[in-house]
Amino acid sequence: MSDLQTVVHGASELVVGPASDGGLRAYDDGAVAVVDGDVAMVGPSDDVRREYPAENADSGIDASGQTVLPGFVDPHTHALFAGDRSDEFAAKLRGKPYQEILAEGGGILRTVGAVREASDEQLVANLTAQLDEMLEHGTTTAEVKTGYGLDTETELRMLDAIEAAAADHPVDVVGTFMGAHATPDGRDPADYVDEVIEDQIPRAAEQGVAEFCDVFCEEDVFTVEQSRRILEAGREHGLAPKIHAEEFTRLGSAQLAAELDAVSADHLLHANSDDARALAESGVTPVLLPGTAFALGEDYADPEQFRNAGAPVALATDLNPNCYSQSMGFVLALACNGMRMAPADALLGATAHAARAIDRGDGTGTLREGTAADLAIVDGPSHVHVPYNFGVNSVDAVLKDGAVVAGEVAADA
Amino acid sequence: MSDLQTVVHGASELVVGPASDGGLRAYDDGAVAVVDGDVAMVGPSDDVRREYPAENADSGIDASGQTVLPGFVDPHTHALFAGDRSDEFAAKLRGKPYQEILAEGGGILRTVGAVREASDEQLVANLTAQLDEMLEHGTTTAEVKTGYGLDTETELRMLDAIEAAAADHPVDVVGTFMGAHATPDGRDPADYVDEVIEDQIPRAAEQGVAEFCDVFCEEDVFTVEQSRRILEAGREHGLAPKIHAEEFTRLGSAQLAAELDAVSADHLLHANSDDARALAESGVTPVLLPGTAFALGEDYADPEQFRNAGAPVALATDLNPNCYSQSMGFVLALACNGMRMAPADALLGATAHAARAIDRGDGTGTLREGTAADLAIVDGPSHVHVPYNFGVNSVDAVLKDGAVVAGEVAADA
Ligand SMILES: [Zn+2]
Ligand SMILES: [Zn+2]
Repeated sequence: MSDLQTVVHGASELVVGPASDGGLRAYDDGAVAVVDGDVAMVGPSDDVRREYPAENADSGIDASGQTVLPGFVDPHTHALFAGDRSDEFAAKLRGKPYQEILAEGGGILRTVGAVREASDEQLVANLTAQLDEMLEHGTTTAEVKTGYGLDTETELRMLDAIEAAAADHPVDVVGTFMGAHATPDGRDPADYVDEVIEDQIPRAAEQGVAEFCDVFCEEDVFTVEQSRRILEAGREHGLAPKIHAEEFTRLGSAQLAAELDAVSADHLLHANSDDARALAESGVTPVLLPGTAFALGEDYADPEQFRNAGAPVALATDLNPNCYSQSMGFVLALACNGMRMAPADALLGATAHAARAIDRGDGTGTLREGTAADLAIVDGPSHVHVPYNFGVNSVDAVLKDGAVVAGEVAADA
Repeated sequence: MSDLQTVVHGASELVVGPASDGGLRAYDDGAVAVVDGDVAMVGPSDDVRREYPAENADSGIDASGQTVLPGFVDPHTHALFAGDRSDEFAAKLRGKPYQEILAEGGGILRTVGAVREASDEQLVANLTAQLDEMLEHGTTTAEVKTGYGLDTETELRMLDAIEAAAADHPVDVVGTFMGAHATPDGRDPADYVDEVIEDQIPRAAEQGVAEFCDVFCEEDVFTVEQSRRILEAGREHGLAPKIHAEEFTRLGSAQLAAELDAVSADHLLHANSDDARALAESGVTPVLLPGTAFALGEDYADPEQFRNAGAPVALATDLNPNCYSQSMGFVLALACNGMRMAPADALLGATAHAARAIDRGDGTGTLREGTAADLAIVDGPSHVHVPYNFGVNSVDAVLKDGAVVAGEVAADA
């Protein structure tokens, strides 16, 4: 009679998503019923059990003492790479100047070399391993950028690898083309920008994996004017703009994002309140990446100014060889302990607002009725426990489209 | 013929412990042979296999692609407590002044209330759960303090619970009496200090679980003079001194530690280079607790001044309701990313130097021949990967006295 699959019930707290007042909509002793992979009902356990009795379910999951959250959405990663740069991390901490590390062939171009040399199979395997780890930490949707190819062939190979890894993986993967991540060795930046615009973007768009076009707008990387040309070219080919903005210096890249109605502006360590207002007015989602500041031992971005401007702050890992963490739970800990965000705001930043930053307005990052039943079952009586119990993985189990894809659940007797 | 139990071989890196030059003694492609729970041989895999052929072993563990480290030693925890103070964490981040939280019955005295109300069984269960989590994160030896009883009966009950939890747990537990953690509600501090000295210390010492006596020397907590009296009384009863020193203000508690030849001085956020020299000269181990600064959003202690003074820095979690993390791997990440320690120094701080901070000069925190085979098998080709891949648990498996007690290992075919 029913296509009921799963009822998760008895959660100390079940978080649905944003409330109309900007807070958190959640139930104590909450339950969610899943039919055909989607949320059929969410509410107090008694109500859900009445509508969806345990005896009709294929499986019942007892989440008592645990909290049910929408699966994390990680809207900014460079999760596809090759090689190991932990030696640079250690050298830097032993006091070696970064310029020396670069002179010895370290830095991003080392990763580019490793990616160019990696086989297609190796690239797929590398990304799959990262997605596995992300899933174990509760991420059910992730953005992944190219940008370690820096030539048309390798950029397209990266997109192919993203598509291939995603095809076999529970994590929903959103691809972003980022040929303009750096200028490759021995190339003139202006000349390389032309290649990105004239060759890479059209072919990447045609290939059909990427949804977004991103650019690293920064002193000594790409100028505001070059970034504008690249993002406009991307848009002409159907790739919506995203931008690495105001990370090390304030160049005007946040204003550019506002002007172009970008989907997101990311990093924003040096953005000011004018920038925050411009982003808010244009509906650009600010994406903050506290892991990057943590890894560099630097100050965090200020979430308060975006909140004050009315822009919903999203959070992401920025997973890359310089910021090597797959855990959105840890990003919550950084957001609360480091950036002093309230846990509810941080959670929204890692779920519903993060979905906004990758243009997923379909309920991704929420557990509203009708959305995909992508959820994390976490240890502890409330969402607060995720950042409170920092440095450990609070995620006990992950469900994607209602099926257990990581960890272990307590099945009903 | 042989009592050989286990050979762990093929590790990309196997860390033995401190080298004579203060660096790390380690082998590439390393192996360790375990006989009767102790390290019988450690060295290159080929050499160890020649002496201890796989066919004679009860079990062989293939650690290729992984790193073998001495099990972590966590020399400062308040891991035994009751209640849940995550609501205070959230309230603080929503902007509630800490004085208000205290006025409403929050803070340490709330934990004291919960511990006094908890049954003996609950206390044992709570500590066991914390030890389980610590073990999953690679800790094989941990110090645990009392100090949430603040009356003789409950302080002794805490020691009983420490003993009971330790008896059934793979983690080696070292008990510390800390009746002078705070002044209980409604008591006069001077009067309470007398109770600690005259009643608590003699009875705690007689009870036989605690090895150390600790005190929170801080403005508005216990003065240097009160701390001196408490630690001297402890020593008279056979409890070696430890001290919470210079955490929020510089009172002279590090100098007191030096004067008393304390085993360790912990926190030290406001210690200066004179203090560092005094500790070094007296052989007091400085214990830094970066998780505490992380949780409070404050600056880290400066490890450099202790290093310069010649005092080997130890690291600990400070696990407690205000700093809720069980992971020494995460402490390594904080030490490197936050305090800018070199990964090798941080690792020694979490193993051999940490053992020094709890007076374990028997090889605890090393994998030298003859020491207990307590080790962590971690993901990644070197110890650097533990802090490099931050916010996730790098520990794949843990062996205690040569037996697998957490995680999973790759058994030889
Ligand atoms: Zn990025
Ligand atoms: Zn402490």
